[in-house]
Amino acid sequence: MELKNDLLLRTAKGEKTERPPVWLMRQAGRILPQYRALRGKLSGFKELVETPHLAAEVTIQPIDELDVDAAIIFSDILVIPEVMGLEYQMVEKKGPWFPKTIQSLDDVKSLRSGAEAAAELEYVYEALKITKRELNGRVPLIGFSGAPWTLLSYMIEGSGSKTFSKAKKFLYTQPEAAHLLLEKLTETIIIYLKTKIASGADLVQIFDSWAGILSPEQYKEFSLPYIQKICDAIDEAPITVFAKGAWFALSDMKDLSCNVIGLDWNTTPEFAREKLGQRVIQGNLDPCVLYSDFKNIQNKTHLMIQNFGGHHIVNLGHGVYPDTPLDGVKCFVDTVKSL
Amino acid sequence: MELKNDLLLRTAKGEKTERPPVWLMRQAGRILPQYRALRGKLSGFKELVETPHLAAEVTIQPIDELDVDAAIIFSDILVIPEVMGLEYQMVEKKGPWFPKTIQSLDDVKSLRSGAEAAAELEYVYEALKITKRELNGRVPLIGFSGAPWTLLSYMIEGSGSKTFSKAKKFLYTQPEAAHLLLEKLTETIIIYLKTKIASGADLVQIFDSWAGILSPEQYKEFSLPYIQKICDAIDEAPITVFAKGAWFALSDMKDLSCNVIGLDWNTTPEFAREKLGQRVIQGNLDPCVLYSDFKNIQNKTHLMIQNFGGHHIVNLGHGVYPDTPLDGVKCFVDTVKSL
Repeated sequence: MELKNDLLLRTAKGEKTERPPVWLMRQAGRILPQYRALRGKLSGFKELVETPHLAAEVTIQPIDELDVDAAIIFSDILVIPEVMGLEYQMVEKKGPWFPKTIQSLDDVKSLRSGAEAAAELEYVYEALKITKRELNGRVPLIGFSGAPWTLLSYMIEGSGSKTFSKAKKFLYTQPEAAHLLLEKLTETIIIYLKTKIASGADLVQIFDSWAGILSPEQYKEFSLPYIQKICDAIDEAPITVFAKGAWFALSDMKDLSCNVIGLDWNTTPEFAREKLGQRVIQGNLDPCVLYSDFKNIQNKTHLMIQNFGGHHIVNLGHGVYPDTPLDGVKCFVDTVKSL
Repeated sequence: MELKNDLLLRTAKGEKTERPPVWLMRQAGRILPQYRALRGKLSGFKELVETPHLAAEVTIQPIDELDVDAAIIFSDILVIPEVMGLEYQMVEKKGPWFPKTIQSLDDVKSLRSGAEAAAELEYVYEALKITKRELNGRVPLIGFSGAPWTLLSYMIEGSGSKTFSKAKKFLYTQPEAAHLLLEKLTETIIIYLKTKIASGADLVQIFDSWAGILSPEQYKEFSLPYIQKICDAIDEAPITVFAKGAWFALSDMKDLSCNVIGLDWNTTPEFAREKLGQRVIQGNLDPCVLYSDFKNIQNKTHLMIQNFGGHHIVNLGHGVYPDTPLDGVKCFVDTVKSL
């Protein structure tokens, strides 16, 4: 089916477009009253992730409500560790929790991976198919995965962490096991993303949410090569890589074989252009700007767009915070769309 | 009293020294068995902070056990918000919690500040005097304060936070109240640090622990000018500024009127020297390196020292993590001392 709005894809491929496309990370979520209404009726977050027609419904909500230029499938990065063998729970107000974690090379060896693991995610592929059908070509659909390092960090820690020191300790003390785990994650992610594309994703994004926890040296050894491998393996759709906090690796990321590089709000357009040249950039307004008044939202959005100077997909520098006023979000989107 | 080891002070003042000095942020703490033994007998963290002879005892423990080149007074950055009017509790395994927080300009106006607030911290000054006497000139004594922005963030949030979005929202929506609060914090910190120096501190360090949460623009408006003001007001002892995550502001920090700039582990020596020239730098080994084997600790420490190329106070890029093996810490210190 032909897309009625393909701004995102044309920009991702490096074309000049009439205006930059705009969407928000976490746009399908608590900022929307219709999301909160649906979520209130369910047993928990995972029911939503695992029920294809519900995941599709919340994926489409921000298209109806905000009129953004892309949909991103409602899902969770931790479905990959789960199908590899580590079940997890999503604890209300605390975040993810894994009863079993990875401690040794033997633990890593015992994990499923590749096609065998990715095949277990039929509910995600089904959600994409339903969404694609129901979107009816209105906007492109984005699929995503966590990056190998970020997923490894949860598999070692068993939960979120302020320092992720257990995960980093694992890299320093058990590098062989770490590389094997990253390899198994990479294999699985490649098949997962390919199947997502086959199920309707028009672009895929890799989230390296904990990139900024690593030293530049560890990032080069334990994260970037695996992201590169994923990018090299996928040519069915454009790829965005968002490595939060990895400002120190931007020069290396310039050579990544992906289409778009996502940036957090600490990175100025000037620094990004110095390091990345005219590559396509996604981001990076401080999500807290959306708490302020319309005039400030408009000014900051205009200034950002002007400073990136094209080859730019407008987004925040992080997922939108759940308590952001809906009017602030709409002002942000409308500012871009009125250009 | 003359110092027997003044390596830290000579390096801070820009002199070339026979080897770089070494100490660790959070060296007085859970890494030491003698700290854990003492702490186990007490009602809580705050009893230790508020009892001068106990604070002095744990301040000196790492000098005895690790033979580092500096002592840093055992205390807490949150004593300043407390004497300004916001009492806090330290909740075991959760961190600080303030029952009352700042929400409005009126809340800010009602806070005590300056000499009146700083005078309430007699227990800190007393701890410094005891420590200074008991150190008997072995090594310099470091005093410290949180930076105004970092302290403000706790006063708004009421606890730690993953995003500090309430504090940032306050900056965007109530800038007048924010600037008044930062001004009152700055006044208080100046007198606090001057009194610490008068009580025995040979150098003072400002911790801007949540610098990296701000956008470059907000950092320039809401943090850096107040740090500058503190640096300008204090000429009684050298000053170190450690703004964690503020890589984007290093070019501006080059002009800060402080003596030493602390760096986190994300910043490579090459980037730091490019931005800071030959200024004295403190840092910045990844604290997780100390989990690895001696050979790796030695190699990484040597490489860091070589890459900074002088004008360098050796430290970690963050406070040492509580579960770090004592042998790893000793290996790090001994590696520097054997140069």
